[in-house]
Amino acid sequence: MTWNVQQAVSSPASPGGTSQVAAALKRLAEVETRIRAFVDVFPGEVLQAQAQRHRPRQASAGSGPLCGVPFAVKDLYDVAGRATRSGSAASDPEPVAADATAVAALRAAGAILIGKTVTHEYAFGAMSPPARNPWDLSRVPSGSSGGSAAAVAAGVVPVALGTDTGGSIRMPAAACGVVGFKPTFGLIGRTGIFPLSSTLDHAGPITATVALAAAVVDALAGADPADPGSKSSPAPGATEGLDRGVKGIRLGIPEPFFFENADADVADAVMAAAVTLEAAGAQLVPVTFPGARNCGDAVLAIAAAEAAHVHRERFAARPGDYGEDVAEALRMGASLSAMDLVDAYRFQEALLSEAAGLFEQVDAVLTPTMGTAPPELGAESMVLAGQRVPTLTGMNAMTVHANLLGAPALAVPAGFSTRRLPISAQIIAAPGQDALALAIGHAYESLTEWHTATPPVHALSTA
Amino acid sequence: MTWNVQQAVSSPASPGGTSQVAAALKRLAEVETRIRAFVDVFPGEVLQAQAQRHRPRQASAGSGPLCGVPFAVKDLYDVAGRATRSGSAASDPEPVAADATAVAALRAAGAILIGKTVTHEYAFGAMSPPARNPWDLSRVPSGSSGGSAAAVAAGVVPVALGTDTGGSIRMPAAACGVVGFKPTFGLIGRTGIFPLSSTLDHAGPITATVALAAAVVDALAGADPADPGSKSSPAPGATEGLDRGVKGIRLGIPEPFFFENADADVADAVMAAAVTLEAAGAQLVPVTFPGARNCGDAVLAIAAAEAAHVHRERFAARPGDYGEDVAEALRMGASLSAMDLVDAYRFQEALLSEAAGLFEQVDAVLTPTMGTAPPELGAESMVLAGQRVPTLTGMNAMTVHANLLGAPALAVPAGFSTRRLPISAQIIAAPGQDALALAIGHAYESLTEWHTATPPVHALSTA
Repeated sequence: MTWNVQQAVSSPASPGGTSQVAAALKRLAEVETRIRAFVDVFPGEVLQAQAQRHRPRQASAGSGPLCGVPFAVKDLYDVAGRATRSGSAASDPEPVAADATAVAALRAAGAILIGKTVTHEYAFGAMSPPARNPWDLSRVPSGSSGGSAAAVAAGVVPVALGTDTGGSIRMPAAACGVVGFKPTFGLIGRTGIFPLSSTLDHAGPITATVALAAAVVDALAGADPADPGSKSSPAPGATEGLDRGVKGIRLGIPEPFFFENADADVADAVMAAAVTLEAAGAQLVPVTFPGARNCGDAVLAIAAAEAAHVHRERFAARPGDYGEDVAEALRMGASLSAMDLVDAYRFQEALLSEAAGLFEQVDAVLTPTMGTAPPELGAESMVLAGQRVPTLTGMNAMTVHANLLGAPALAVPAGFSTRRLPISAQIIAAPGQDALALAIGHAYESLTEWHTATPPVHALSTA
Repeated sequence: MTWNVQQAVSSPASPGGTSQVAAALKRLAEVETRIRAFVDVFPGEVLQAQAQRHRPRQASAGSGPLCGVPFAVKDLYDVAGRATRSGSAASDPEPVAADATAVAALRAAGAILIGKTVTHEYAFGAMSPPARNPWDLSRVPSGSSGGSAAAVAAGVVPVALGTDTGGSIRMPAAACGVVGFKPTFGLIGRTGIFPLSSTLDHAGPITATVALAAAVVDALAGADPADPGSKSSPAPGATEGLDRGVKGIRLGIPEPFFFENADADVADAVMAAAVTLEAAGAQLVPVTFPGARNCGDAVLAIAAAEAAHVHRERFAARPGDYGEDVAEALRMGASLSAMDLVDAYRFQEALLSEAAGLFEQVDAVLTPTMGTAPPELGAESMVLAGQRVPTLTGMNAMTVHANLLGAPALAVPAGFSTRRLPISAQIIAAPGQDALALAIGHAYESLTEWHTATPPVHALSTA
């Protein structure tokens, strides 16, 4: 029953009567050979059945902002009847029986799943081959949710789901000039999502607008009994609170680390975003972000050790199933001692304690999402702040903090670099303040037009 | 300013006007050379000042059940102006500046701290040398809170504080025939208590009666911002709920593991306790306790790895500061891989998930607290269920589960063995149900007189 991407590109199905889905499939056919964002696309008759199934509910769910909206999910999420490959080239897995909790919830809200997108292998990296960046096809879309971000940026779907362990929703959103939101840890259930590091993994949306991200968060928030990290939190009320504005909001501008390690054009653009928000009523407060420089090491230790545990048997039995970068990361994780891992968890504990003080001073913190442009396809290293670093480190340097804190963090388009590549501002709020982070992002988005810019792949695709 | 235990024994101070404290010091002078439970006793003038300090508050706190009650704390708790030795023979540490959160709270309730009690070195063991069991001076009081339990059993103090990582409150309470209560994880703050394993460490009381344990829990529960494990839970209302009785309570009797691994006289006595509770209105329900056999390995891995991390620098620099048993446990912890530790944490997660199902079937579970008698002084192994095992494993086999679950667990006297040693029943309730566990224990205690029995050291002491 698999209908492959090639087929969707060469003869897009018409799912009859669902105009948004038809438009998505048309756009997919136009751009997919260039962006290579998808690994699986549903056949037209399946899409039609999905649309039909939601019609009787239109009286209730039909009025919601997600009704009839086409969406895609990172190929780490289970989708009933399809295989979950998690970016692995290993031999074909079996189709799974049930949707991941988040997929089922988004479908219940009336959204229509059109397919699955490229992830970096097992979500452990930020290159996401073979996907490409719609703004510059010679560059990566970042990752690990690279296919989801590329699909949204290229106008295929307005909504896609990703996962974020050290920045894997926000990095590709930043690189591709779209909105990415990592919610509070435990807010969105992860049952049916292949794990990287259950201590740090978050599910969340990549979208065309902040309002869509808020709608997805409202639809997906809720207790998920089979996910040990799930919390039964109060409903975030993200959509309801979206227009609250930024009057009186205390916005922290972290002085060491973030701005000083970004390229000058990136730092300037994000500082301009701060000034825009200040003009709208926010108060800018210089702050020090606790542990700013050391979060990367702690995230890498925790993710590598927990991933090495997940892959323990398979990696021992079939090391050839893994790409060299992931194999190296798993070997590193396996080489850590229990004391090293305790050290990273204690660092996280101390950070949480210090951040509680930070979020008494300010309501949210504004930083660049990524300090520089995403690297060329296949690069093995990149330059950040004058230093040559591994590509993952170069891209996640400013996103890892929110994973350790379990704090909501929003990546929102904030202009273009001198290279005509997207720049992204990151808004981090205290755990539980998802609605606030989204409201600040929505206020900024409403005052700018960055999110309406169209990547060149749109023009190319009509050729 | 240290006034040592020897002095307290040879010439007990009279703290004037505080009759309960005077009686405690008199009893201490009578029994301490035999039970060797204390490492530090306050001078009379300090005790008098403590008593004075609370007099103005008597209108409010003075009416409480803890006002004027003498208590002792395990020498893992900080006490302002005294050194915290944590059972280590290493060179003399400096006096600390502030009371541990729990010590300050118990003093604020009007209780009077008379001294500090023996702990097994760094709380990592259950022998607690040089303390002895008041019921049989040739045997250990168990541990690691061995001095606290011996002091309560010998009638020196009605209340003492201990810590419990794998059973270290409940094991010595069981061995010494007194009440021991490990509350829900996070209910009582741990700031100022030397850590063994912050994932599993709990602070709690060892007392002469269940009502006193409830009073201590009510006095000590509350948020402790400097303790990362602290939770701001609703007040437990343990004292208020103490007389609710057991009518309609569903009491789980675990069929494999617990009763079958206990000595016959222990299993019979605890089953008799079940029948007593059934006659009072409880409903006995056969249940399977999840992961019963494997909890010990997970607790040992987590405790050893986290303790190895705590002692990392000191143990590397000064291995000779450590006793051989603790050194061996720390070496074991240091030899674990990060993946081994993740394995133990995942076991804990799975256990929590299965226990949620268990606590839908029943309100609480009844087990023996210890399966057999505590070993002879200085023993290196003991026999449990026909197998020779390390002393720690032999004593904590039935207590470790509640540490992984963070569940409240009460040890309550339930008779005497054929060797005239105390037998203890353990009542485990769901996390957050501290008041329920205590109410069941109080109901049982009210129907029996086991807790009023006096160990032979009382008689010896008058000689």
